[in-house]
Amino acid sequence: MDFAPYIRDIEDFPKPGVVFKDITPLLKDPKAFQKAGDALLGFTHNMQIDKVVGVDSRGFIFAPMLAEKLGAGFITVRKSGKLPYSTISESYDLEYGTGILEMHSDAIEKGDRVLVHDDVLATGGTAQAVCKLVEKLGGEVVQCNFLIELTFLNGAEKIRRYPKEVLLKY
Amino acid sequence: MDFAPYIRDIEDFPKPGVVFKDITPLLKDPKAFQKAGDALLGFTHNMQIDKVVGVDSRGFIFAPMLAEKLGAGFITVRKSGKLPYSTISESYDLEYGTGILEMHSDAIEKGDRVLVHDDVLATGGTAQAVCKLVEKLGGEVVQCNFLIELTFLNGAEKIRRYPKEVLLKY
Repeated sequence: MDFAPYIRDIEDFPKPGVVFKDITPLLKDPKAFQKAGDALLGFTHNMQIDKVVGVDSRGFIFAPMLAEKLGAGFITVRKSGKLPYSTISESYDLEYGTGILEMHSDAIEKGDRVLVHDDVLATGGTAQAVCKLVEKLGGEVVQCNFLIELTFLNGAEKIRRYPKEVLLKY
Repeated sequence: MDFAPYIRDIEDFPKPGVVFKDITPLLKDPKAFQKAGDALLGFTHNMQIDKVVGVDSRGFIFAPMLAEKLGAGFITVRKSGKLPYSTISESYDLEYGTGILEMHSDAIEKGDRVLVHDDVLATGGTAQAVCKLVEKLGGEVVQCNFLIELTFLNGAEKIRRYPKEVLLKY
């Protein structure tokens, strides 16, 4: 299936000069949505996976479906202050300053094989921070899995240590 | 399955005096996670459903799984300024002041049968605003579906016009 017709370009969002890839037409179409989930699942090639980590908030759309189908647990990574229990944190670069991502300190067990999923790989700062959180708790990142990669932002470079799969590249 | 052991009470979060229901132990356990999704799906009793609406961000965890299994489209409702395309909006009461929720103006078609899902029904302000958004676009809310209801906050009252299903009541 060709998914590109279901991704809508929004010019000047969230700010002038940026072309935003809007995935909501894909989510809204039952067939394209199912097939996209199937394709992301297909990237895991029957790997044994213990946990799927989804990044707040659009990473939460496909990551739980992947976890459920893989028989894995689902783990959330969220921005600072959102997770209620004891957390570990990692900072990542934003255009101006830094952001903080958090994961519960009991989210991953030593030796867990972990799939990291987010909707878009852009600069790679978020994905890199998520992988570091997984590793801090003794987990092994067995794949970073994205719906979309914006290749011109070179995010792949930041996570080159990890196997990567992407459904749509721009 | 008894899901209560997988919900963790966090005292004084997000502020003193509040006991927060932390669902992450349930999400992390593959079996409890799958069974919870199955139970939420079971509430739909083979209803014909065209769209499942999930509320940013924890509503995104189960809503897409429900949409995928029902053969429905998945629609996101988000806080103001997050959705990139043309939107409709609805305000809802917060403890101090009001919040704004948005939905894309092309999210629902007239006559669509819509399932609304969020993780927690608390004061009901969010769920009520989401139902209004669906109706503004001509959709019919056929069920509001929650993982948890905090009954002492009387949120059910605000959405009494709609069929409601809940997995765990406190």
